[in-house]
Amino acid sequence: MRDGRVRPAAELLTASRRGDVPPFMVMDVMAAAARIEAAGGHVIHMEVGQPASPAPATARAAARAAIDAGRLDYTSALGLLSLRQRIARYYRDSHELDVDPERIVVTTGSSNAFILAFLTLFEPGDRVAVTLPGYPPYRHILSALGCEVVPIETTAATRHALSGEMLLAAHRKTPLKGVLVASPANPTGTMMSREAMAELMDAAASENIRFISDEIYHGLDYAFPATTAAALSDDALVINSFSKYFCMTGWRVGWMVVPAPLVRAVERLQQNLAISVPTLSQIAAEAAFDGTAEMDAIKHGYQDNRRLLIEGLPRAGLDSFLPADGAFYLYADVSRFTDDSFDFARRMLEEAHVAATPGIDFDPVHGKSFLRFCYAGSRAETEEAIARITQWLRR
Amino acid sequence: MRDGRVRPAAELLTASRRGDVPPFMVMDVMAAAARIEAAGGHVIHMEVGQPASPAPATARAAARAAIDAGRLDYTSALGLLSLRQRIARYYRDSHELDVDPERIVVTTGSSNAFILAFLTLFEPGDRVAVTLPGYPPYRHILSALGCEVVPIETTAATRHALSGEMLLAAHRKTPLKGVLVASPANPTGTMMSREAMAELMDAAASENIRFISDEIYHGLDYAFPATTAAALSDDALVINSFSKYFCMTGWRVGWMVVPAPLVRAVERLQQNLAISVPTLSQIAAEAAFDGTAEMDAIKHGYQDNRRLLIEGLPRAGLDSFLPADGAFYLYADVSRFTDDSFDFARRMLEEAHVAATPGIDFDPVHGKSFLRFCYAGSRAETEEAIARITQWLRR
Repeated sequence: MRDGRVRPAAELLTASRRGDVPPFMVMDVMAAAARIEAAGGHVIHMEVGQPASPAPATARAAARAAIDAGRLDYTSALGLLSLRQRIARYYRDSHELDVDPERIVVTTGSSNAFILAFLTLFEPGDRVAVTLPGYPPYRHILSALGCEVVPIETTAATRHALSGEMLLAAHRKTPLKGVLVASPANPTGTMMSREAMAELMDAAASENIRFISDEIYHGLDYAFPATTAAALSDDALVINSFSKYFCMTGWRVGWMVVPAPLVRAVERLQQNLAISVPTLSQIAAEAAFDGTAEMDAIKHGYQDNRRLLIEGLPRAGLDSFLPADGAFYLYADVSRFTDDSFDFARRMLEEAHVAATPGIDFDPVHGKSFLRFCYAGSRAETEEAIARITQWLRR
Repeated sequence: MRDGRVRPAAELLTASRRGDVPPFMVMDVMAAAARIEAAGGHVIHMEVGQPASPAPATARAAARAAIDAGRLDYTSALGLLSLRQRIARYYRDSHELDVDPERIVVTTGSSNAFILAFLTLFEPGDRVAVTLPGYPPYRHILSALGCEVVPIETTAATRHALSGEMLLAAHRKTPLKGVLVASPANPTGTMMSREAMAELMDAAASENIRFISDEIYHGLDYAFPATTAAALSDDALVINSFSKYFCMTGWRVGWMVVPAPLVRAVERLQQNLAISVPTLSQIAAEAAFDGTAEMDAIKHGYQDNRRLLIEGLPRAGLDSFLPADGAFYLYADVSRFTDDSFDFARRMLEEAHVAATPGIDFDPVHGKSFLRFCYAGSRAETEEAIARITQWLRR
């Protein structure tokens, strides 16, 4: 003690190795965009995977009413029963599927769901396959929780989806304990057909590889209807969220469909890791299901933007991209122009004031050839972005 | 594939060993109370550590305004800058302490903060000391994240606080990497003096043992003012929350004061583990600081309840309990009546319709002699509880 303060430890404070996960490069893009805007520039934001619209009016009204009604307590760890039942009804209405509400677990966004899923399914050291390109937190949460990430590169040969054959080839090299896929996918926007998903799940089951399906972009399918893994097997762990279709990113609320034998373990973990999910967000989420007409209109806007990009970008010179089946992403190959998409994104932002995400966030190997465009903005912004990129690439 | 369904894996789905954490016994008490209430009984709830009042009116008004204003986006991973600055001002106003807002990290309740703290500070296998009795999720989150929990039993000899001597004795047996304490504490309600905390932190620093201070019950101190570890060292990791003093349990919002060398690691982890904290809860939390007059009136109600219990329980026969210095808990020794406080709690609930939490949740060793009473309810309920317990124990 000196001056009422405790003497510092001799050993310097450093973060743990497992906590040492990479940052998102997109954050650097966002910071650069903010600097341009602070200097009076007008940036078109196509870098963040975030809808431009607010939550459904039904959800906002329910939240207001709940605030007026009084206290917002903890809920039970698995979530409000009425919300779990409403989610079960969604599976009946949208997928003609009976899911026991007991198997539905409300989560603080899909982020919380990944933590619960990985801790429940995997021991430290277990090997879990993910696709490249793919959502970076898959890899980073797995490694922070002690799992070994096995990235599998997808190619045009399988329409940028993981196939059973690719999974089993990786499994033969070193045994896998799990696999995680998304359809529609981020950053590619590609989707798996029902047959492709069933074939992959069959391969996984044949080798006792646990299957996790990230369905956060369900509801935003354009090329063909998305298949839920819950329709194909009761053993799949399904993750979904209100963030994308329901435009509720900042509310942080999602859900899982959990195999029945794992529900109790997930419940005990959630009691300890979170106590419960934000109550107001749960109440708003339940009411969001009554706002699908409003959300479908927004989805139609994404469809228009998608068509504008698919037609407009090739005219600008960006003529190579993956099938934009769903979500609100277009993953464009920019290798004609650069071998460093991070630098390309930086220049496009500085010179054309259009922000997009370099692929390196999603794929450390081939990402340097790709840019991800998010088309969740307005039609006017999408048209303006195409015009700016066209002019910029002509220079 | 059969009937369009994937064939199940041969190996049964079972939860991981690390996901196998114990449930809360209090959940069983709550379920039993719900059954009594469903049958028309009137239960007085002293089992859950949850204020009976809603969030401050200022917080609710800010949340309503934010809902009306439109979209609720993700925030930056460390939280809204204005909230981080407001929390820094709280340290100046309440503790005459300058804390750099850059060191303040907004979290989804203290639960999210524990996960970030443990992942950032500790590697798998690191040994971390906690006190018994203590908040069960400390032990369960640590073990789910691969740390080894070293429980240290506190006694009346140190006013039920961990001392530097006790910490160093445990460290000599097998080296510790960290220690976590709370003042005011749950379930005991006991507090550490500034001197006791400084002495413990000095001992920890002398052996490079990282110090985590759970200050979730700050603001609810009756015996003497609570000390923040942030005032004693910049190396302490401090965890706090809006749940208790500000009555915002269901909003799930809290904060950390992080040592400067760890902020970037915490930020990168949070980007991946959570993206960001619920936006509406952050906006409400910032406005909550303008509602301290309302919250202080509620605190005075707790003080009245505390006095009623300290005077009334001994008359009922429950005359042995720990110093009820702060929080809203009284930890009563019931060994005069039973060697199984779980059974005692069950009978008190069934026969007197008063719900309390058996100590076994908080202390697997001596908890069977203790009950925790939460006095965050109304004065009328507190008086009625004392009357019921008095009558019940007389029988």
